[in-house]
Amino acid sequence: MNKPIILTGDRTTGPLHIGHYAGSLSNRLRYQDSHEQYLLLADTQALTDNASDPDKVRRNVIEVALDYLAVGIDPSLTTICLQSHLPALAELSMLYLNYVTVSRLERNPTIKDEIRARGFGRDIPAGFLCYPAAQAADITAFKATIVPVGEDQAPLIEQTNEIVRKINATAGKAVLPEAQAVISSNGRLPGIDGRSKMSKSGGNAIQLSASPDEIRDAVKAMFTDPNHLRVEDPGQVEGNVVFAYLDAFDDAKQELSEIKAHYQRGGLGDGKIKSRLEDILQSFIAPIRERRQKLSQDQAYVVETIRQGTERAQNLTEATKREVVDALGLFQL
Amino acid sequence: MNKPIILTGDRTTGPLHIGHYAGSLSNRLRYQDSHEQYLLLADTQALTDNASDPDKVRRNVIEVALDYLAVGIDPSLTTICLQSHLPALAELSMLYLNYVTVSRLERNPTIKDEIRARGFGRDIPAGFLCYPAAQAADITAFKATIVPVGEDQAPLIEQTNEIVRKINATAGKAVLPEAQAVISSNGRLPGIDGRSKMSKSGGNAIQLSASPDEIRDAVKAMFTDPNHLRVEDPGQVEGNVVFAYLDAFDDAKQELSEIKAHYQRGGLGDGKIKSRLEDILQSFIAPIRERRQKLSQDQAYVVETIRQGTERAQNLTEATKREVVDALGLFQL
Repeated sequence: MNKPIILTGDRTTGPLHIGHYAGSLSNRLRYQDSHEQYLLLADTQALTDNASDPDKVRRNVIEVALDYLAVGIDPSLTTICLQSHLPALAELSMLYLNYVTVSRLERNPTIKDEIRARGFGRDIPAGFLCYPAAQAADITAFKATIVPVGEDQAPLIEQTNEIVRKINATAGKAVLPEAQAVISSNGRLPGIDGRSKMSKSGGNAIQLSASPDEIRDAVKAMFTDPNHLRVEDPGQVEGNVVFAYLDAFDDAKQELSEIKAHYQRGGLGDGKIKSRLEDILQSFIAPIRERRQKLSQDQAYVVETIRQGTERAQNLTEATKREVVDALGLFQL
Repeated sequence: MNKPIILTGDRTTGPLHIGHYAGSLSNRLRYQDSHEQYLLLADTQALTDNASDPDKVRRNVIEVALDYLAVGIDPSLTTICLQSHLPALAELSMLYLNYVTVSRLERNPTIKDEIRARGFGRDIPAGFLCYPAAQAADITAFKATIVPVGEDQAPLIEQTNEIVRKINATAGKAVLPEAQAVISSNGRLPGIDGRSKMSKSGGNAIQLSASPDEIRDAVKAMFTDPNHLRVEDPGQVEGNVVFAYLDAFDDAKQELSEIKAHYQRGGLGDGKIKSRLEDILQSFIAPIRERRQKLSQDQAYVVETIRQGTERAQNLTEATKREVVDALGLFQL
């Protein structure tokens, strides 16, 4: 149990897509042996901007869990747990809110960007503004020291560490460890339209459960180099979605590098590279889709997996909460 | 169990004083038989503006409980419970924060006043801004329909009911009842200096555990009518602290009314009315002080009383949380 503790998770707002795989799930598979890994089905956080649609948040608990298991997350190595069923997280969140000012939350660059992106205007749900404190509760309750995040989320870890330092200073001892943000080297996969990152809501994603037809249609519709009109023209690799996906999913790196060179000097058509990508994606997704399909017919197993992981996480997070409360010298019955 | 449910409580920031008795404890004694009454030792809320001094918040859990028991709160009739040990309150708080906007919290008149009074400026702890949602969690978790409050706190109950209506609308059914603010007819007792309301921090209070000397000194120092220089002069009753206290604690209303008339027409010295008040306060506080003294030597009993009440409250608040989560259709393991 001396492995470093790592916490990640996903808001339960929709099934995951191959962008999640490239950006985070693939790393999580690697971390399974080397780290004590917790995956949070973040239904509580999903509510911070989906409060009017709790049904969506509920439905996708199972969908995200299915995605985890289908890609190869092994519940005997990785703990999959449900955020809403870990009361210590809510208790620590409420505690931490006293150690962060409203103006500090408002200055958080991630929050500022997300408020803009969601068009909240003046009607920001208080839960949304406060979610960095809730995230600090998640991270510290598991005593995670490694937190993989997207580049845009690094300020949230800084916020967590500020709270950690305040709690430790008030307690007069280092009851909580600081966490380190690990930014994925893979970056974010663009959507098939090339306009923005792949997202559930953007309609530009290839889901991990995509059917062969969906994969074929998505690759066909994929953005390449708009100036690459004739096969013999030189083509651009940068900003070309097909190559971004090949970089993420094509394991024959040497061959890929030759293909890129060929495309750049001209003489290689989009049809050829798309056909290569489609083959790769079809054989990448097929076994995931099959496992997912099989698992989805045994929901009892999936629920039991979540239940067992959540129980394990309950014990851990409850213990941390008690330690924090004790260290602060609050009343314990 | 068909009695109306009433919830009140006190932030555990200091022992209670006779102003608390006049304003709320006396009513709570009356409610014991007619209502299902819960008293919350509000240590979690106390932290919202005492985060740097958790030790103060801890110490005063026992002090406030001693005050409750000493004035005659009967734990077989009234449930005394500890806020920090009711995780459902934190869970509901976090949930409700999604159903209230930041700007709505900032517009709350009580919060605005309190932010000014505490001199927070821009450095408002997020927990403080959010406490109306936490209070909504307290009230609704107990399904309290009656909430006695000071006049300045009525907007908090309005905030609670707004959240109740949003939850019920989202759930599509009336899972939570609205609460009614009951404003104490007694009003707030002024401090002995007559400058502001009696308060622990103002140094102008007479505690329920005051010694005979402390009572005597407090009455001696009490603000009367500054223009009542000679005994034969007419004196003012309004704004005269001695009369404010006599109104609250002198049961001989007819006699008191004659004394007021005498004071107003002149010929009654401050010494006389102070002596009357001192006698009344000495005999009012003496038995409370004695019971408090005796109870404070049996802390195990006090802690056990809190523990039992908290356990009862845990069951009730946990059940409400489950009902709310079910009604919203969130995932239940």
